Amino acid sequence: MTNPEVERVDLLISPGTVITMNDALDVIHDGAVAVKDGRIHWLGPAADAAALFGPEETLDARSGVIMPGLINAHTHASMTLFRGLADDLELMTWLNDYIFPAEKKLNRDMVYWGAMLAIAEMLASGTTSFCDMYIFEDQVARAAADCEIRAVVGEVLYDFPSPNYGESENGLTFTRELIEEWRDHPLVSVAVEPHAVYTCSPDLLLKCRDLAEETGTSLKMHMAESQNEVAQITERYGTTPARHLYRLGMFSEGFVGVHCVVLDREEMELMAEARVRVAHNQESNMKLATGIAPLPEMLDLGITVGLGTDGAASNNDLDMFSEMDFVAKAHKVFTLDPTVMDAKTCLKVATRGSAGVLGISGNTGMIEKGMAADLIVVDFNKPHLTPVYNHYSHLVYAACGADVIHTVVNGKVLYRDGLFTSLDVEMIKARVGEIATLFGG
Amino acid sequence: MTNPEVERVDLLISPGTVITMNDALDVIHDGAVAVKDGRIHWLGPAADAAALFGPEETLDARSGVIMPGLINAHTHASMTLFRGLADDLELMTWLNDYIFPAEKKLNRDMVYWGAMLAIAEMLASGTTSFCDMYIFEDQVARAAADCEIRAVVGEVLYDFPSPNYGESENGLTFTRELIEEWRDHPLVSVAVEPHAVYTCSPDLLLKCRDLAEETGTSLKMHMAESQNEVAQITERYGTTPARHLYRLGMFSEGFVGVHCVVLDREEMELMAEARVRVAHNQESNMKLATGIAPLPEMLDLGITVGLGTDGAASNNDLDMFSEMDFVAKAHKVFTLDPTVMDAKTCLKVATRGSAGVLGISGNTGMIEKGMAADLIVVDFNKPHLTPVYNHYSHLVYAACGADVIHTVVNGKVLYRDGLFTSLDVEMIKARVGEIATLFGG
Repeated sequence: MTNPEVERVDLLISPGTVITMNDALDVIHDGAVAVKDGRIHWLGPAADAAALFGPEETLDARSGVIMPGLINAHTHASMTLFRGLADDLELMTWLNDYIFPAEKKLNRDMVYWGAMLAIAEMLASGTTSFCDMYIFEDQVARAAADCEIRAVVGEVLYDFPSPNYGESENGLTFTRELIEEWRDHPLVSVAVEPHAVYTCSPDLLLKCRDLAEETGTSLKMHMAESQNEVAQITERYGTTPARHLYRLGMFSEGFVGVHCVVLDREEMELMAEARVRVAHNQESNMKLATGIAPLPEMLDLGITVGLGTDGAASNNDLDMFSEMDFVAKAHKVFTLDPTVMDAKTCLKVATRGSAGVLGISGNTGMIEKGMAADLIVVDFNKPHLTPVYNHYSHLVYAACGADVIHTVVNGKVLYRDGLFTSLDVEMIKARVGEIATLFGG
Repeated sequence: MTNPEVERVDLLISPGTVITMNDALDVIHDGAVAVKDGRIHWLGPAADAAALFGPEETLDARSGVIMPGLINAHTHASMTLFRGLADDLELMTWLNDYIFPAEKKLNRDMVYWGAMLAIAEMLASGTTSFCDMYIFEDQVARAAADCEIRAVVGEVLYDFPSPNYGESENGLTFTRELIEEWRDHPLVSVAVEPHAVYTCSPDLLLKCRDLAEETGTSLKMHMAESQNEVAQITERYGTTPARHLYRLGMFSEGFVGVHCVVLDREEMELMAEARVRVAHNQESNMKLATGIAPLPEMLDLGITVGLGTDGAASNNDLDMFSEMDFVAKAHKVFTLDPTVMDAKTCLKVATRGSAGVLGISGNTGMIEKGMAADLIVVDFNKPHLTPVYNHYSHLVYAACGADVIHTVVNGKVLYRDGLFTSLDVEMIKARVGEIATLFGG
């Protein structure tokens, strides 16, 4: 018999410790979250939820953690196709002898299936939004829409011809059309994404900036990833990548710098002043041996920093839990200060920080009434998550993507009890397996 | 109907890619491993195995990887009790204000259950042997024997009274008795384990050395973990920890130095010459911000190095897959050389290297006929392990402990299809949960 006084909601997630990541960093023990029309409708004690709501669907949080989905601030999703193709090589050998030749063989269909695999991996490991940069990015947009994950995509633009749009000058037209095509989509949006200062002329960069301003989209590019890049740009332009971009007039609130490993204090101050945002990629920077970004310093300056995995070819997974663990530990040892990048700060960067980088802060990145229901549940009923003194600590230092049992994007349950609700993951793996044979897999 | 020509074996693991880690680093695709009387009896093509053997028990390797169990070269198993109790603190604050006061409350029973939890976590994440150091180490030995995991245990010895054996001088007697008690056990053995140079007088260290020599056991201690330790020892003895130990006559093939973070070239040469072994703990060194050990240099000098997780309070898990990933990436970025610590080398350190550190090289650490059947199976049928170009790469850069589906120690299946065959893990978690309430959990 239905109690007429209970309110109908679409989804109730209960019972668990609700890590809200709201401004006060509220935590609700024995809590629950109710979802209605894709949005967070209510959060509070699990006991109250049972009396208040008549849910269409329920997710048992198994007394684990209910938290905002993690947000991958920078990846090249379709590079899952090249996961483990080549490792442990000098950057230029890796790129010139393995990655670039492989990428020359790519087509739209392959990029679609590579993105599908990445999205399956991300959903299964608790990522509910991602920001992408690659070729054939229309296919990544299509994959994201098909999978119903939240995404900001951007076709990579540079001075040379692209396997997708052909001559360099077509890149801006392609991007403009992509922006228009996805303008009203509830989950997918588009950014303008020049590759880097060493592959893009000042002229192209300024055209990118103007397109981003005109269309009200973000402008995102790799920046100051390595000492080698800084040396190259200094030789070409007489200044560092960050200063070169600043002088060109690229810096603004809409600008996202990816990597930002090699920066001096003055550059960071310029970035902070311009309200530039940063996508930090700890594991990739380590694997490619490019350096350790001055993350604690950027955060101290008030720069919005999000966390990304970079592509699977330089990581080699898209697990944001592992990424947080690396962030916490790498900055401690690099600064020889065990107090930097504490667990809460790491989790902030991977949720609210990344939401800021993707330009979706008002919509997701925390659990608060009215926000989009991008939620995950982490099962704490595991030896490696026992006992529990501090949930933040476990999420950063002990949990891994495999501990995620439920993933919800925009109120829709995409992953439930460790299984995809609609994605045919066996088919995706099979398709990628076939594609990989072309590259020696 | 049984074919009379087939040979009876106890266990057949098939079909999978067999990563042997033998001297030639042989890999058998579509392979199988047969086990008899606790030992590896045969390895070869899966198709042949089906015709040759009539197994009592089979493990479906699901076309994943069949590999030697990982070996945790240094941990404090029972510190799982303090997982996440305190993080992100200065080392001395962490120790003096949190860890030492908590350890004062420990008793035999708590240490037993903490070790049981650690063993459950290790078996579930593919670790088949571990080397331990703690108080009430008789209880860790008992837990290892009860769980049928392979272990080298050692009571921690220092100049001050112990909650276990009381006055310092009783420690050597306790250790001697422990050695005798476990001398003939098939899985558990004992080492002599003074804590560190800053907590042990030269007199105690020499007595430890003599006991180890007399009883034919290993001598294992923390060494050169931090700059702070080096400064303290230099002030006290006028020389560095490694030189102090060398001059005392502690270095020999039986000596294991744990951490070895702060070493100069001459010290490493002294260690190599004396055939000293090293237990490296990447994640703990990073989390406690003590530094990056000169691992590539030690390996170049031919030093036997194994990999450990250290205790769960400074990691905060016991996942050796994660540990390998950190090793590969940390040394790359620290040396700014992406070619160091490649995937194969990392896997060698975590198997053969650790076996060397535990003094069980002749018995385990690789898949070869006659070796103990310490084997694990990693399920590659996952998005994050797709596609497959290189199995070593996936094991180090993309797999995590949760991908392990079967764990076999000494021929006995202890973990099958993601479930413990005899450990009551719910009871273990419940007991540890109760104990944790004493510490604020």
